[in-house]
Amino acid sequence: MHNLLVKNARIASMQDTAKAYGELSATDIRIRNGIITELGSGLTAADDEHCVDADGQWCLPGLVDCHTHLVYAGNRSDEFAQRLTGVSYQQISKQGGGISSTVRATRQASADTLHAEALRRAQRLVEEGVTTVEIKSGYGLDQETELRMLDVAGKVAETLGIQVRRTFLGAHALPPGENVSADDYITFVCDTMIPHVAQHALADAVDVFCESVGFSLAETRRVFEAAKQHGLAVKGHVEQLSNSNGATLAASYNALSVDHVEYLDPADVQALAAAGTVAVLLPGAFYYLKETQLPPVEALRNAKVPMAVATDFNPGTSPVASLLTCANMACVQFGLTVEEALRGITVNGARALGLTNTGLIAEQYRGDLTLWDVPDPSALVYEINGYRPSAIICGGKHVR
Amino acid sequence: MHNLLVKNARIASMQDTAKAYGELSATDIRIRNGIITELGSGLTAADDEHCVDADGQWCLPGLVDCHTHLVYAGNRSDEFAQRLTGVSYQQISKQGGGISSTVRATRQASADTLHAEALRRAQRLVEEGVTTVEIKSGYGLDQETELRMLDVAGKVAETLGIQVRRTFLGAHALPPGENVSADDYITFVCDTMIPHVAQHALADAVDVFCESVGFSLAETRRVFEAAKQHGLAVKGHVEQLSNSNGATLAASYNALSVDHVEYLDPADVQALAAAGTVAVLLPGAFYYLKETQLPPVEALRNAKVPMAVATDFNPGTSPVASLLTCANMACVQFGLTVEEALRGITVNGARALGLTNTGLIAEQYRGDLTLWDVPDPSALVYEINGYRPSAIICGGKHVR
Ligand SMILES: [Zn+2]
Ligand SMILES: [Zn+2]
Repeated sequence: MHNLLVKNARIASMQDTAKAYGELSATDIRIRNGIITELGSGLTAADDEHCVDADGQWCLPGLVDCHTHLVYAGNRSDEFAQRLTGVSYQQISKQGGGISSTVRATRQASADTLHAEALRRAQRLVEEGVTTVEIKSGYGLDQETELRMLDVAGKVAETLGIQVRRTFLGAHALPPGENVSADDYITFVCDTMIPHVAQHALADAVDVFCESVGFSLAETRRVFEAAKQHGLAVKGHVEQLSNSNGATLAASYNALSVDHVEYLDPADVQALAAAGTVAVLLPGAFYYLKETQLPPVEALRNAKVPMAVATDFNPGTSPVASLLTCANMACVQFGLTVEEALRGITVNGARALGLTNTGLIAEQYRGDLTLWDVPDPSALVYEINGYRPSAIICGGKHVR
Repeated sequence: MHNLLVKNARIASMQDTAKAYGELSATDIRIRNGIITELGSGLTAADDEHCVDADGQWCLPGLVDCHTHLVYAGNRSDEFAQRLTGVSYQQISKQGGGISSTVRATRQASADTLHAEALRRAQRLVEEGVTTVEIKSGYGLDQETELRMLDVAGKVAETLGIQVRRTFLGAHALPPGENVSADDYITFVCDTMIPHVAQHALADAVDVFCESVGFSLAETRRVFEAAKQHGLAVKGHVEQLSNSNGATLAASYNALSVDHVEYLDPADVQALAAAGTVAVLLPGAFYYLKETQLPPVEALRNAKVPMAVATDFNPGTSPVASLLTCANMACVQFGLTVEEALRGITVNGARALGLTNTGLIAEQYRGDLTLWDVPDPSALVYEINGYRPSAIICGGKHVR
């Protein structure tokens, strides 16, 4: 029975209203059985409703981190340190570093170890107000480990009391040290793993790393086709380091999202708009990799392609456990407005996950709320590490 | 009686030893009356010593943030948001924004208001392990408010139980709306404010914003001269946006530090080395301003000029309340090694403040320690928002 009444809040609903951040005139939010049932002012709590007085604080939807790889084992901080002393990426790869080392460590790790390590990372996100997190597989690259990752992803969210969406990313890289051809591996992904994942409802979507250093457009198409045949939504890591036309392909499969998109051709944004596909910006990876090619924000904005922002939390290219810092980076590095950044980590993050009941403060939406003692919602994005929510509510229940 | 025995730690002392991070073979640290009196292994606690079992965790010195402007009133997140929607800096200035708005708000704020706002910011730093913070005045630009800022700076540290160094930055900007000439204002700074600050021991050093948009080299020299005459150490905001030769001037006054230094001429680093002046890198401002000119790290390294890293926490150009994020930025943006970054927020941060008993784990140093449950100290710099200390000890006393 998660019944809650929040009173006296300034509600930044993120609805599409005339006021900034979709601010409502209503000040009170009633949640029953975890769902927002009433917005108004001067509401009174029923006997079975716990009452929270926001005392004029801002209330935002719970934050949504729609792209993470936070289940993995191993430590690559030494690699980060080595690279700064001048050791090349090639040398590190030769030493067994890079993604191979994460795959090795993840394969060797028990579910308990994976859970403990992922929990610490997810906890840092939750502390900032994240109540919905997407977690990808992709560091197993064999059936057993991929499934273990998806299982752990679910357990992490359960432990923290937050909502999770799981994405199968078997097509993240070729399994190291096995001499398997891309063609054969993609066949295994499509004919063995995707059917299993679909049948056992272990993931909500299928993702591919479509890139010159990842999988080709043709291989990506095979994965998307298999996902479609098994009723799974698709999304793609596309146009991060070069333009492989992965975004257009993804749009043709009505992808939930295309992620990274620094090299997206502005001419291709119409395809995304037509498909209702969200562009997920990942400024953490841009920052760590010192990239210079900016995503075509102006074209996305003009075409009304929804833009989301996520951490891309991963050990190689974006070890950043702060969604608000990524929102700040999306503004500073990519030129998003503060409002775009805040919509990117709420309503548009939810859209990138196909969630139609998350990311807004509106009736019939999930009772996922954060309270903030700030002068204005822009403060959350402006100051790095400046604020934490004074309350975090997920499905009507206090997470902290 | 702050007597403490820390046992079973991996000690990253930051001393200049052969091992990375100055790791010691000793595992135990005895602190008596707030001072480290013994390093060893298998030490036993005296009756009047509180014992902390680190259980194999890493122990680092308490962190030092050697450059902040964290005492001020007012909110400039709206200005940050406006700029991202395309409003120019000029327009914002015309509306009364920019530093003028901070000065106005700070002048109007009571000591209690200033204390409450600064406390929140400083608290975020302390949560990450900062046990020594430098705080500058410079948002009053009149005697009463400058003194109030310095007073509040001391109280904030007292409230948090940390060490503070206070810097008088009357020469931060011309007072807004007064039509006073730079010459007359500098005369007031030199002849009225500096003598008062020195006489009442309200600050440990004097700083100047020496820049094309700040004070000239000649004006800076007058301030340094006044500081010297009154026995105060000097430091300078120099070569941030252009090369004004402020660093060389500062070195000629044996400045504790020169801060920013993106435009420092590599040929001038010898003067810093000879004077023992620390170069303080402030990557937060570089990031927020989207600067492209990198500080001459290689030249500083070769000349063995100590490099510190600080937040420069301020409302206009570096609202970043995380010293570890700045350490990360110093690596990613400026190419510091992880070890340089960690020395930059410990021992070299302390040197930039003229503190000879802070920033190292060594006998006769202050008992300022942080414990970290991490595989390696590099993890602190590698992951953004990844870790918090499991214990923070300042002067032998638990801060949290
Ligand atoms: Zn990713
Ligand atoms: Zn500064």
